[in-house]
Amino acid sequence: MIGRKLIERLARDGALGGATIDSLHAVDIVTPEAVAAPFPIGREAFDIAAGYVASRLVAARPDAIFLLASVVSGEAEADFDKGYAINLDGSRFLFEAIRHEQALSGGAYKPRVVFTSSIAVFGAPFPESIGDEFFSTPLTSYGTQKAIVELLLADYSRRGFLDGVGLRLPTITVRPGAPNKAASGFFSGIMREPLAGKEARLPVADNVRHWHASPRSAIGFLLHAATMDTGGLGARRSLTLPGVAATVAEQIEALRDIAGERAVSLIRREPDPTVERIVAGWPRNFDASRALALGFRAETRFADILNAYIEDEHVRLHD
Amino acid sequence: MIGRKLIERLARDGALGGATIDSLHAVDIVTPEAVAAPFPIGREAFDIAAGYVASRLVAARPDAIFLLASVVSGEAEADFDKGYAINLDGSRFLFEAIRHEQALSGGAYKPRVVFTSSIAVFGAPFPESIGDEFFSTPLTSYGTQKAIVELLLADYSRRGFLDGVGLRLPTITVRPGAPNKAASGFFSGIMREPLAGKEARLPVADNVRHWHASPRSAIGFLLHAATMDTGGLGARRSLTLPGVAATVAEQIEALRDIAGERAVSLIRREPDPTVERIVAGWPRNFDASRALALGFRAETRFADILNAYIEDEHVRLHD
Repeated sequence: MIGRKLIERLARDGALGGATIDSLHAVDIVTPEAVAAPFPIGREAFDIAAGYVASRLVAARPDAIFLLASVVSGEAEADFDKGYAINLDGSRFLFEAIRHEQALSGGAYKPRVVFTSSIAVFGAPFPESIGDEFFSTPLTSYGTQKAIVELLLADYSRRGFLDGVGLRLPTITVRPGAPNKAASGFFSGIMREPLAGKEARLPVADNVRHWHASPRSAIGFLLHAATMDTGGLGARRSLTLPGVAATVAEQIEALRDIAGERAVSLIRREPDPTVERIVAGWPRNFDASRALALGFRAETRFADILNAYIEDEHVRLHD
Repeated sequence: MIGRKLIERLARDGALGGATIDSLHAVDIVTPEAVAAPFPIGREAFDIAAGYVASRLVAARPDAIFLLASVVSGEAEADFDKGYAINLDGSRFLFEAIRHEQALSGGAYKPRVVFTSSIAVFGAPFPESIGDEFFSTPLTSYGTQKAIVELLLADYSRRGFLDGVGLRLPTITVRPGAPNKAASGFFSGIMREPLAGKEARLPVADNVRHWHASPRSAIGFLLHAATMDTGGLGARRSLTLPGVAATVAEQIEALRDIAGERAVSLIRREPDPTVERIVAGWPRNFDASRALALGFRAETRFADILNAYIEDEHVRLHD
């Protein structure tokens, strides 16, 4: 979802950081959808866990590389080998291919690499607000793999092989499209479905707090990371990004303010102990002052996240 | 040095955690020296960076595995490929071999794995005293590799493939033997050489503070890690170990108290800006309360470290 929105945005802008885009190469495990753009877009299906792929991808020496590929948390937990192969080895193959391409270029090639990490690098018990200096103790294989790639990104950057920025994205809310099976899916569902006149299931209590940013902000993060001056990052290449720490009750209030009581009445409370337990282990609030100081911007109220969804997805309000 | 001392200690004890040792298998890049013991000791030369080695090493299903192998900091910085091959891939091959051996055993095999990490997982700027929750921002490839293996050790432990303990050892002082070229070598040299009636070079100022433990304490750490109840570790499998935060001046005072003015007079002050710069980037003091609560013990005064050296290496005092 983020990859497609990023390509659409780049196609619309035709430029990145003031420089006209000559071409774009989109790679995914399945062939990415076509997007109309003022520059050629190559589209290919590759498995980045295959060692021979990465050198082929960097052979054209792209100036900016967005590394978004991931096996999600549940799958990385269920399939140990697949999670490490894609989330760790796939990233490392890419970094190694860049290092060797730099050598082939006589030292000239050094791309910006934007890597989407995750707040899953942090593990409970948490302080009230998690700062950038809180340590990485992931409690999932997914979080472990992301934390390892953050370390590699920092070392390859420090050694001058690439110019990396790691982004720990908040949960992206409101996700457009159909409901998915992720444990976090209801945070979007209780907004998206009622706005479409449909019922939505709420499996946790109203006082559950979570960390959100809109898809629009997520794309803004990626573009800023691709164009910012990385001098201010020093050796600490990964950042916790700004978001909105909102309770479910605050989400519902925003929905009431914007879409009215009828929308809110479509939220069905169906406590689910399994989801409650999973969500209880997640961090709730972050201190993103470092990312803010480096120019990353996000919504500051949940109502703004909801309005961004309504605008970007052309939602018609019925009340 | 630590590996040899560990084997000598195990040979002397004949047991580990109350259980008689049946056999020991010692592996290094060169064939380890023979040690007399009440149990058979296999000795072999292997490169753990070769993928086929690890499964062979765990085929006998040892109950305890000490993973001490490392390319040192300077070499890992000079030879990027070698550092990653040995410090990261070698460890991961071993963990993978254990996981597959567990599957072959029908789930029964789950060894204790004691991994020697390093305080190089931490990077400046530091707080006054570095706690176990200070984040890992290594400033060397060596520190990066150690931090990554800490993450792997925690994930493989959490998944139940092995029972891991990671130890961030202080600088081992006083190292016996000939002076070596490590930037930290003088911390031992200014004690060891004067005790032997020889001159020693001091390249930094007297107020430089560093974090020390004796070889005797290091062996104690390894044995405790191999036998402790790991229930108290939870998901946080790596520990900063207790040590003595001593200035060079405090080291010299201990030498004066124990060996007299004549020994101290053999320390030649020869400031070396390169060494001063390297040492300035190192952490100086740690909060090891978690390791202490878990039963790890070390010296608390530098004089005790010096006395341990004198006893263990049978040093004759001349004053």
